[in-house]
Amino acid sequence: MKGPEEGNPFMDVDFSATFKRNESSIDVPGFYDGSGIYKIRFMPSELGVWSYETNSNCSELKALTGKFECIAPSASNHGPVKVSDTYHFAYADGTPYIPFGTTCYVWTHQEDELEELTLQTLKSAPFNKMRMCVFPKRYLYNNNDPALYPFDGSKEEVWDFTRFNPDFFRHLEKRVDDLRNLGIEADIILFHPYDNARWGFDKMGMDVNVRYLRYLTARLSAYRNVWWSMANEYDLMENLSLEDWDTILKTVAGNDPYDHLRSIHNCRQFYDHNHPLITHASVQHHDPRYIFEWKTQYNKPIVVDECSYEGNIGLMWGNITEQEMTRRFWDGFLSGGYVGHGETYLHPDEILWWSKGGELHGKSPDRIAFLKDIIESIPGEYRERISFPPQWEYFPCLGKEGEYYLVYLGIYRPAVKQLDLMEGKKYKIELIDTWEMTITPLEGTYDHNSIVELPGKQYIALRIQNV
Amino acid sequence: MKGPEEGNPFMDVDFSATFKRNESSIDVPGFYDGSGIYKIRFMPSELGVWSYETNSNCSELKALTGKFECIAPSASNHGPVKVSDTYHFAYADGTPYIPFGTTCYVWTHQEDELEELTLQTLKSAPFNKMRMCVFPKRYLYNNNDPALYPFDGSKEEVWDFTRFNPDFFRHLEKRVDDLRNLGIEADIILFHPYDNARWGFDKMGMDVNVRYLRYLTARLSAYRNVWWSMANEYDLMENLSLEDWDTILKTVAGNDPYDHLRSIHNCRQFYDHNHPLITHASVQHHDPRYIFEWKTQYNKPIVVDECSYEGNIGLMWGNITEQEMTRRFWDGFLSGGYVGHGETYLHPDEILWWSKGGELHGKSPDRIAFLKDIIESIPGEYRERISFPPQWEYFPCLGKEGEYYLVYLGIYRPAVKQLDLMEGKKYKIELIDTWEMTITPLEGTYDHNSIVELPGKQYIALRIQNV
Repeated sequence: MKGPEEGNPFMDVDFSATFKRNESSIDVPGFYDGSGIYKIRFMPSELGVWSYETNSNCSELKALTGKFECIAPSASNHGPVKVSDTYHFAYADGTPYIPFGTTCYVWTHQEDELEELTLQTLKSAPFNKMRMCVFPKRYLYNNNDPALYPFDGSKEEVWDFTRFNPDFFRHLEKRVDDLRNLGIEADIILFHPYDNARWGFDKMGMDVNVRYLRYLTARLSAYRNVWWSMANEYDLMENLSLEDWDTILKTVAGNDPYDHLRSIHNCRQFYDHNHPLITHASVQHHDPRYIFEWKTQYNKPIVVDECSYEGNIGLMWGNITEQEMTRRFWDGFLSGGYVGHGETYLHPDEILWWSKGGELHGKSPDRIAFLKDIIESIPGEYRERISFPPQWEYFPCLGKEGEYYLVYLGIYRPAVKQLDLMEGKKYKIELIDTWEMTITPLEGTYDHNSIVELPGKQYIALRIQNV
Repeated sequence: MKGPEEGNPFMDVDFSATFKRNESSIDVPGFYDGSGIYKIRFMPSELGVWSYETNSNCSELKALTGKFECIAPSASNHGPVKVSDTYHFAYADGTPYIPFGTTCYVWTHQEDELEELTLQTLKSAPFNKMRMCVFPKRYLYNNNDPALYPFDGSKEEVWDFTRFNPDFFRHLEKRVDDLRNLGIEADIILFHPYDNARWGFDKMGMDVNVRYLRYLTARLSAYRNVWWSMANEYDLMENLSLEDWDTILKTVAGNDPYDHLRSIHNCRQFYDHNHPLITHASVQHHDPRYIFEWKTQYNKPIVVDECSYEGNIGLMWGNITEQEMTRRFWDGFLSGGYVGHGETYLHPDEILWWSKGGELHGKSPDRIAFLKDIIESIPGEYRERISFPPQWEYFPCLGKEGEYYLVYLGIYRPAVKQLDLMEGKKYKIELIDTWEMTITPLEGTYDHNSIVELPGKQYIALRIQNV
């Protein structure tokens, strides 16, 4: 809609609309997109004809009405992702969604060529979720300034926090859209502490924070692949109290008509993921085997979004091996949760995937793709963590007793193993070398207490099925 | 002394002596050694002339007196090991003792040839402590019966628990003596649960248990290299309550005039190592980095006597790699405690070092020897765990800030690292490849915040010293 351009429309003009169809009525916030243009984006969840009527404190934008028909979605559109069966996720149409995430914190703040290269890389990578920041980042290996900023302001970084920069948000939206076209969920990080006194976006004050959240959610909520991550390492943001985080959660939830997923990521201290507005636990932890415990504690899906990164930089979370990263994925997925990837190899031009995107150099993504195929092949009812029989109880295992076991031996390397499965059944066994990416059926069938010969090397999994 | 042979001297005759020198007066229990022979073994702690007088409920053995001169010990005799400086150990003469233990649970229950082979192996191994059981063991890979039993009884295992078998104990003593001659402490395990209903030594009842403890301690306490481990995996011994363990501790402490070291080893649940009769925590745990916490909790030396074994058997604690075993040693020692070794490789004749001794087949012992040299070279005042500067805080490190750091990077493999040491000093750095067993001095000197290039591989330690 066209509306007033004079004054400060970001501050002065309220604009929203109510969308209706049959019994459904949804209030949707709008936003000022500059040049006298006001927009409202709506993501209907029902087919058929919808009507709308705008609301505003400005007469030009008030009581505008209209109708449109919501047609069937394209074949690749399953809607936004929601929590499903307590610990899992599914798209709105019921199709299971299994997150295999990666992290490129500020990939949208780079030169166009590099951003396109990131998308090119993602095309053939196994990842279907991207953790990414709204704000730019100042940190080791992150010394470049972005072309666009979210607020009006000078190059000397004197920001007018009362005026947003629509170009910045349009660029962000384009990149969220690019991810959507690749089937990738955008896990959007709303605040982060890595500003290093460069821009001050980590210390704007709660008035500005809330205004920013309302503007961002008004612009982005209608993108079906959006998730809201309140923060990266919330506990490192000294200027924000637990009360502030509560306000932030309420602002996001209150301003997003579609109830997109909401999480908050920690450094040392977990947020209380029992908070009713937190939809799933987004965790930083080096040992994803604890997922089994956290599930009980939170009764929500557990996503270890950060378990250290494959790489060789000096920072303590940035130099695990390709084997260890692969191991942490197997540990986490077979503990009944989800794990995210990141990569931090030294690079002559400081282009590290973890932050800027670009190309992948590590060896874990191929193994993660291999795991993904295996996980996606598990019938849904077997995707729960079970205790593997007594002497293996510390090994992560998905399945159902007597029917299906996918168990991971990790760093342990037995050359022989006596089974202790449910009696009175016959089993077939496949030996999975998670590093070499091979699946080898063992000959014959096995009893519940058969002795199985194993290769005596690390990173082996077994898929055992009742025949 | 000669005494009565008739009746049951084990039950009927009390026999002890009081040893005196100047102000010192020590009551020492004696024991019946069969064939009418009664013995008292005494380990004096002062040079010079001692007198004694026996006590007994039998007139022949009562009020016998004598004198002898305690002469200076041989050069290799530093006396028994005691706790020193809260978290450490030293021999009675003050010489530091740093335990590098191993485990051959029932090596003294094998054929003579195998027992001698074990001793031969130990001669060139780095180990100076041996965990070993008094009772034989029935378990996977432990199906042979010993030649000797601690009680009188038939081959059908109907034991006369009122009569000990002196031959059994003489054999045990010979082996403790053999270890002493190799400079190895005998960490003697008094009870264990691996009987599997074969002999019933795990379920004798507390009357027999106490009598056995009094007999064993009377025989063995005068051996300077004896430590008392109340149990292996005390929490798996269903027939013994916490009250029983308290009685066991009191019986051992009350019957050992020399106050040898006392511990109790767990399976899943730690014993309360704050118990005043426990001298040090003997721990089973897979991650020795927790030593740092346990030291604060118990204020005693922490010995992770079992951290899993290098090997390839199917039991979950018996198949870590040689690299992982080496890593756990470095983790534990640089966390300010001690770690024990064990080895469980499949063997055609079921001779696994962990239980029967024999030969070592693994690759960790050489690396443990390499670590031992490094640890023994650390000046005593630097043998405490310190926090390595902020970003490395999870890396185990011994030393003193600004003076000496021995830090272990474990599975992490940075290719570059910015130091963050005490300012205003110059440092020299040695790069230790704990797997290849090389120590490479880096050229030049470094400032507190220098950037150091590292090989980008796992299992590296740095020795950093103020110059």
